[in-house]
Amino acid sequence: MALTGVLRPGHVALRVLDMDAAVNHYGNVLGLIETGRDAQGRVYFKAWDEHDHHSVVLRTADRPGMDYMGWRVDSVATLKKLAQDVEASGLATDMKWIAAGEQLHCGERFRFTVPTGHVMELFAEKDKVGNGMPYVNPDPWPDGLKGMAPTRFDHCLVYGDDLDGSVKLFREVLGFTLAEQVMAGELMIGAFLTCSNKAHDIAFIRHGEKGKFHHCSFILDGWSDVLRAADIISKKDVSLDIGPTRHGITRGETIYFFDPSGNRNEVFSGGYISYPDKPTITWKAEDIGKAIFYHDRKLNEAFLNVIT
Amino acid sequence: MALTGVLRPGHVALRVLDMDAAVNHYGNVLGLIETGRDAQGRVYFKAWDEHDHHSVVLRTADRPGMDYMGWRVDSVATLKKLAQDVEASGLATDMKWIAAGEQLHCGERFRFTVPTGHVMELFAEKDKVGNGMPYVNPDPWPDGLKGMAPTRFDHCLVYGDDLDGSVKLFREVLGFTLAEQVMAGELMIGAFLTCSNKAHDIAFIRHGEKGKFHHCSFILDGWSDVLRAADIISKKDVSLDIGPTRHGITRGETIYFFDPSGNRNEVFSGGYISYPDKPTITWKAEDIGKAIFYHDRKLNEAFLNVIT
Amino acid sequence: MALTGVLRPGHVALRVLDMDAAVNHYGNVLGLIETGRDAQGRVYFKAWDEHDHHSVVLRTADRPGMDYMGWRVDSVATLKKLAQDVEASGLATDMKWIAAGEQLHCGERFRFTVPTGHVMELFAEKDKVGNGMPYVNPDPWPDGLKGMAPTRFDHCLVYGDDLDGSVKLFREVLGFTLAEQVMAGELMIGAFLTCSNKAHDIAFIRHGEKGKFHHCSFILDGWSDVLRAADIISKKDVSLDIGPTRHGITRGETIYFFDPSGNRNEVFSGGYISYPDKPTITWKAEDIGKAIFYHDRKLNEAFLNVIT
Amino acid sequence: MALTGVLRPGHVALRVLDMDAAVNHYGNVLGLIETGRDAQGRVYFKAWDEHDHHSVVLRTADRPGMDYMGWRVDSVATLKKLAQDVEASGLATDMKWIAAGEQLHCGERFRFTVPTGHVMELFAEKDKVGNGMPYVNPDPWPDGLKGMAPTRFDHCLVYGDDLDGSVKLFREVLGFTLAEQVMAGELMIGAFLTCSNKAHDIAFIRHGEKGKFHHCSFILDGWSDVLRAADIISKKDVSLDIGPTRHGITRGETIYFFDPSGNRNEVFSGGYISYPDKPTITWKAEDIGKAIFYHDRKLNEAFLNVIT
Repeated sequence: MALTGVLRPGHVALRVLDMDAAVNHYGNVLGLIETGRDAQGRVYFKAWDEHDHHSVVLRTADRPGMDYMGWRVDSVATLKKLAQDVEASGLATDMKWIAAGEQLHCGERFRFTVPTGHVMELFAEKDKVGNGMPYVNPDPWPDGLKGMAPTRFDHCLVYGDDLDGSVKLFREVLGFTLAEQVMAGELMIGAFLTCSNKAHDIAFIRHGEKGKFHHCSFILDGWSDVLRAADIISKKDVSLDIGPTRHGITRGETIYFFDPSGNRNEVFSGGYISYPDKPTITWKAEDIGKAIFYHDRKLNEAFLNVIT
Repeated sequence: MALTGVLRPGHVALRVLDMDAAVNHYGNVLGLIETGRDAQGRVYFKAWDEHDHHSVVLRTADRPGMDYMGWRVDSVATLKKLAQDVEASGLATDMKWIAAGEQLHCGERFRFTVPTGHVMELFAEKDKVGNGMPYVNPDPWPDGLKGMAPTRFDHCLVYGDDLDGSVKLFREVLGFTLAEQVMAGELMIGAFLTCSNKAHDIAFIRHGEKGKFHHCSFILDGWSDVLRAADIISKKDVSLDIGPTRHGITRGETIYFFDPSGNRNEVFSGGYISYPDKPTITWKAEDIGKAIFYHDRKLNEAFLNVIT
Repeated sequence: MALTGVLRPGHVALRVLDMDAAVNHYGNVLGLIETGRDAQGRVYFKAWDEHDHHSVVLRTADRPGMDYMGWRVDSVATLKKLAQDVEASGLATDMKWIAAGEQLHCGERFRFTVPTGHVMELFAEKDKVGNGMPYVNPDPWPDGLKGMAPTRFDHCLVYGDDLDGSVKLFREVLGFTLAEQVMAGELMIGAFLTCSNKAHDIAFIRHGEKGKFHHCSFILDGWSDVLRAADIISKKDVSLDIGPTRHGITRGETIYFFDPSGNRNEVFSGGYISYPDKPTITWKAEDIGKAIFYHDRKLNEAFLNVIT
Repeated sequence: MALTGVLRPGHVALRVLDMDAAVNHYGNVLGLIETGRDAQGRVYFKAWDEHDHHSVVLRTADRPGMDYMGWRVDSVATLKKLAQDVEASGLATDMKWIAAGEQLHCGERFRFTVPTGHVMELFAEKDKVGNGMPYVNPDPWPDGLKGMAPTRFDHCLVYGDDLDGSVKLFREVLGFTLAEQVMAGELMIGAFLTCSNKAHDIAFIRHGEKGKFHHCSFILDGWSDVLRAADIISKKDVSLDIGPTRHGITRGETIYFFDPSGNRNEVFSGGYISYPDKPTITWKAEDIGKAIFYHDRKLNEAFLNVIT
């Protein structure tokens, strides 16, 4: 295959303080589709145009944040190979295999912690449940969508200390491309990495603490959907961070908001089609405002400081 | 890399009857950027957000159509490997190497004819000329764009006889995925193939003659750009085929029109994000109307019969 | 008031063959809101952002078409004055007063037939039921909308013989402005008339028969809603006439389709802001294709011939 | 005519500190069309889809702000009548007639000061220069547009002390409708007034000082144009106030920015179609954030305090 190895962000596991409020938010406001609940009380969601069983897993905890992020690889053989490569790289810690079925409808997962302190997983198998339309003569979208109704879980942005280490692992071991970077002189403080044609599949920002979560992001069809999402945020009294606006980095059209537990969500549209041979785009740290929020050209206070 | 092997459609070489009219069409109406002319009189164009030197090459001839389509692969090593694989497959004919520099700013190309009679090329090197913006702190789009101003050359759709052979070569040798297919009972009459996250990078329709060209397609940012393209078509008295409308296949929002030589162009936006593990979508031949033109639910006469 | 006299198209009364099918179409597909049924079996609808009780009235009959169109005037005094003016003009026939309450929640109506054979009404009072949102701190749109969900009934286009007579009556007696016209040499064959800032509130096409109905039109917020309407048309197997496309006349972005009884509906967006001092725009009959369907630049057969 | 009396905002006369910078801003960034310069050094602009000679007049001064706003009325007879009515109302001061020709291509103007201290004018005649397209078979938009390219000057928002007096004058003498209001208990602190189908043609905010200018606004075709305007603001290093966002009041989709002299401009799209019988919408002063910026639900500091 021309698209091989790590294919995409497969799931994000989030901690929420109040599951009922979270289910209402992710189901009715963000507009994901609930696909299951397990014996541990975890609730599973997918965006409507995803074919796999789930892309978001929520569990109740006493503080918000991200437990881990899972990556779909192209085959069991690749899973075994990449697990060996991760181990051999010396860049990961706390490596272990999670048995198939620990998450509903998901195969065996190889879990490890990257240098910025984030827990990542690789997996090759997850049951297909379809996108709500038949595989023969489908319509372009299904009936009954609710809320913002993004088509897919797209990426996460996370904060941590050893940015160089995590970037090295994603580039050299997992085969990601550095689409864009933010540089403070010679020091990389932001890295936007892709394993696909998308402008980013994961992004890291350098930060004093390990393992912090900035946001998980879901993709919409277009800018008119960003307006609709913005309207829904106000109609439903959701806490807004910033937007609608455009990112300088990736050019995405975006809006940020918070789930009831304080985890930041993004919905966005647009951005360019990326290829591994595209030269890396660099943003100077002194121009970080324009890089992040192209129209405002300055960061709002929440963006840098509210992380979970 | 996670995106490996064949990366993307790199160029399409078209025959035009009148170069001045063609240059006006591709430059001012479609809105590509002219990047060079060579000693043979060929004219080179790129879409603004492409970084490589060119993606469209025009030459004057006495009949319109496509000479060949070129595919950018990830490295010289891959180029050598895929050339061997193509040769070993027994599916290609007329194989040869074209020297670096035969096209301006393009490295060595491996050329072969696929079972439907279309000439394809693989290449690993083409000079980067950038997208009109700096690689440090770029704006989201450059000034001075003209016409429809698509961001990229996206794909071609071609007609030929041995559909099964070409599909086998693209899937099994070049690693493409069959995103969607049109089936007349057990007979595949349409194949939409991708080497990326895009819903298609090339498409084949079964047809009595070998080596026919249906259209080359360029991608726009969104549906409002499709309307603008439609307006430009009428303002500039360009021959319209059909649109604005939506495809059932790939969900793309589209408009078709003809260059002054009779070659069909498409500009489109939207469509889903595809992965190799997405189940192939099937359209029944008896529902081909809805598959091609989702709103009209019938083919216009030109779509099936006007090919070059 | 600066907007005085005849304010807007207030209602259109349509004949349908099968009320259940019609209620499904106007309620679930077009997405109007049913506001009442009367003792005669008539069913009343409004578009969501209208404040009056209804703008569409359906009755069962053995042939489709328009019974009449009603115009909201600014006051009872204006109603009396205009009724006298219509009578004095000698341009109308079959004049009579319809008692308040004959339509649910509607005041007294002055009914008359214009020279093209269409029945028109003036009325000054209709109960306000609101737009589904409070008059204090309203959100921009209500929850629970269905189908295409246009914001308002916008205009009708009708066919009839004595175009000059109807145009004279609307301009000279009712105070409308001729925004655009289609001329076959010296003969006016199309007239687009406005009583407001909208590019048209009613349009007439010259035609051999009296009293024919071409379409009633409803306005959407934008071009992305036209695409969504087009998708709904195919998802719900509604008969499409043409679109999405743009009109040359008024510049509106449009799609036409048929209700189950064969009455044509339009939903559209855009168009310019019109004022009475804007010079009348003229389209030559020989260029009628571009005037009506700006992109196709030719009429489809249905457009001219299918009227009810 | 059904649209009578005061038809529209006809011009706004602004003071700028540096004419060259202003001409670049209004011409190349905002994208108005320069239509003339007079002996006093004033520079005249129109938006492309206006037919009158100008809608913006700039003069050099040592402080920014609005000199006056002019209203186009339907006829000379109406001009005379309204001038008498204004005089008879006792609500205006500093009344005088300005001779035809004092502004290029503009007829006689009746000038007066309203209770909030703003200078207003009525006029009935201004030369038509067209919208850049023929009146026979026009295309939907002209070539050669620059910058944001709004279609029309739409409205102004001004700040002043005697809100009740100005509102009374516009409603009772000039025939405007109060579309929306902001109420601090029983005190009206904001009034949005229309003389047309547009949701507002002028707005007043109660403020301690007389005669202050908040912004002049220009209308775009849609939300995708608001994004494009936002991009242009950053590309051209224009000072942004806020946006893209939506207003609660009028529902408009908007972005605010400053000209080089510090005068605030708005470009916006959308908003509802208003009629004089629509019940007035009320916003509570304690919810002013949501009323002004529906998504942020709070005012930014600049919005209330930066006036010229």
